[in-house]
Amino acid sequence: MSAPELYILGSSSATPTRDRNPSSQVLKIGSDKIMIDCGEGTQMRLIQLGIRHTGLDYICISHLHGDHYYGLIGLITSMNLMGRKQNLNIIGPPHLKDILDLQLKEGGKQPEFNITFHATNPEKPELILKTSHFELSSFPLKHQIHCTGFIIKEAAKERSLNIDQIENHQVPIAAFKSIKAGENYINDKGEEISYLLLSHDPKPSKSYVYCSDTIFDMDIIPYIKDCTILYHEATYMEALADKALERYHSTAKQAGIIATHAQVHQLLIGHFSSRYDNLEPLLLEAKSIFPNTALALEGLKFLINENDADAEPTVLELSNAFNNH
Amino acid sequence: MSAPELYILGSSSATPTRDRNPSSQVLKIGSDKIMIDCGEGTQMRLIQLGIRHTGLDYICISHLHGDHYYGLIGLITSMNLMGRKQNLNIIGPPHLKDILDLQLKEGGKQPEFNITFHATNPEKPELILKTSHFELSSFPLKHQIHCTGFIIKEAAKERSLNIDQIENHQVPIAAFKSIKAGENYINDKGEEISYLLLSHDPKPSKSYVYCSDTIFDMDIIPYIKDCTILYHEATYMEALADKALERYHSTAKQAGIIATHAQVHQLLIGHFSSRYDNLEPLLLEAKSIFPNTALALEGLKFLINENDADAEPTVLELSNAFNNH
Repeated sequence: MSAPELYILGSSSATPTRDRNPSSQVLKIGSDKIMIDCGEGTQMRLIQLGIRHTGLDYICISHLHGDHYYGLIGLITSMNLMGRKQNLNIIGPPHLKDILDLQLKEGGKQPEFNITFHATNPEKPELILKTSHFELSSFPLKHQIHCTGFIIKEAAKERSLNIDQIENHQVPIAAFKSIKAGENYINDKGEEISYLLLSHDPKPSKSYVYCSDTIFDMDIIPYIKDCTILYHEATYMEALADKALERYHSTAKQAGIIATHAQVHQLLIGHFSSRYDNLEPLLLEAKSIFPNTALALEGLKFLINENDADAEPTVLELSNAFNNH
Repeated sequence: MSAPELYILGSSSATPTRDRNPSSQVLKIGSDKIMIDCGEGTQMRLIQLGIRHTGLDYICISHLHGDHYYGLIGLITSMNLMGRKQNLNIIGPPHLKDILDLQLKEGGKQPEFNITFHATNPEKPELILKTSHFELSSFPLKHQIHCTGFIIKEAAKERSLNIDQIENHQVPIAAFKSIKAGENYINDKGEEISYLLLSHDPKPSKSYVYCSDTIFDMDIIPYIKDCTILYHEATYMEALADKALERYHSTAKQAGIIATHAQVHQLLIGHFSSRYDNLEPLLLEAKSIFPNTALALEGLKFLINENDADAEPTVLELSNAFNNH
């Protein structure tokens, strides 16, 4: 399976700007697509970026501030109008379900697909679901209201066979599966041969962590440690650290500190206050603490991989909606 | 007072397209702004068109299908974040209030301005409110759920004095107000002089009527008769009249028939199905019945006036978001 891909659909905080929509991202793992947050206008961004919502079977909502979920009901409505039949998993605070139920009821039309709702827990980390491609967990973030971050980790990969040793020990095909699963092989003579000799360690699973919105909080380090890419909100510059504290947000510098302590491979920052036209200073501030940092701007695609720090992220083919600004 | 101005913010029906947002319009009368419908992304369109939401004190929602109101909660949230203090009037179906209340409660932040909610009546026409600038009424539309149209009429204008006759009859300034209000003048000799001689008839008040969403329905004619500009939905071409009927929508031809019978000055059509890339055939179809028709496309501004049928509407200064397509 190729490396998971992360698409940024929105990078603004509470109010949108001419160029920046509120929070939303899509993580593609194999054929699965997972959306994380869904601010107003997300369905239009999907159209602009050419990302189809077929295969989008998981939508995670961090909390019930509008810039993280006001676009969800519109996306569900459009999915239904376009004939969706397959189940949709929605992961979010319990009352999100009440809001969606009320809006669907008053609209007079229930979706023709099933929605499986998974309530997040703001008190402790929880495994939400596990598929053949990934494992999705939530963990508590400290914000003004019930809020969680999300961890998406590729499913553990199989060991690969050491063909030389397999031939050397004349291991039959029937034994391959158990060796890959980590069992020793016992040959006709009753000799036990270690799976460690007969196979290579699997490539480590990549993981993506999403932290928005949150106050600067070292308590999250144990949950997010060693992830491949960390997205951490950076609503303000450090000069406005007081405002960040008061509003339960973080600064670019604080995002860099969290990334350093969590020993992640790469940091992405986003959720920028609409007061900043030029985001370069936020990037430089985070980089001064944690060099392998990038701006999570709409239209960018990041590979969840241990990339070169200097590698530029791919820019998707965008409409003029926002790449001319 | 100059003629009211109508700004089109969205022209799509149920699902947005790359270029077309769901329904929303703003009518400017004097210093008042009235929004009619508020589909998802409307607050972004306001930014793109450079229309400030200061002075936007009235928002009318026709019905609770998402393409007509999903953008309202985001607009309210942004108004609050930007420090709005003055009262906001929301006019719409009763359960709209429940939806807004629930979303505001779960967001953990009540607006710092008051919201006065006016419930519409789907059974009969009603005067909703009257200000010094305009009169706003609703009337029933036949759609799948509770739905109303809106009529906005300039406040009745004052009579203007006939200066020659005023001088001729040596009418004192103290009597001007009562003459303008339609009272006769009695001079010192006890002679009664008609206000019709002393003043001119006021200019007729202009009116704007909004009809979306609706099945083709001649019953609305008495409500909308003789209005200056009629906006009528035209979701489909006549070739799909069966689909229009089934879904309680109208065709471009049917919009033209309604405009003809209502003897309006100009017809605007909108709420176009996403199946139509090129809207010219819908315009031609409506024009074949009612020649003074225009497409209500986002970014256009119309004067509510008895304009020349050939006059082109003004195109606002748009971002590249949608004028490059």
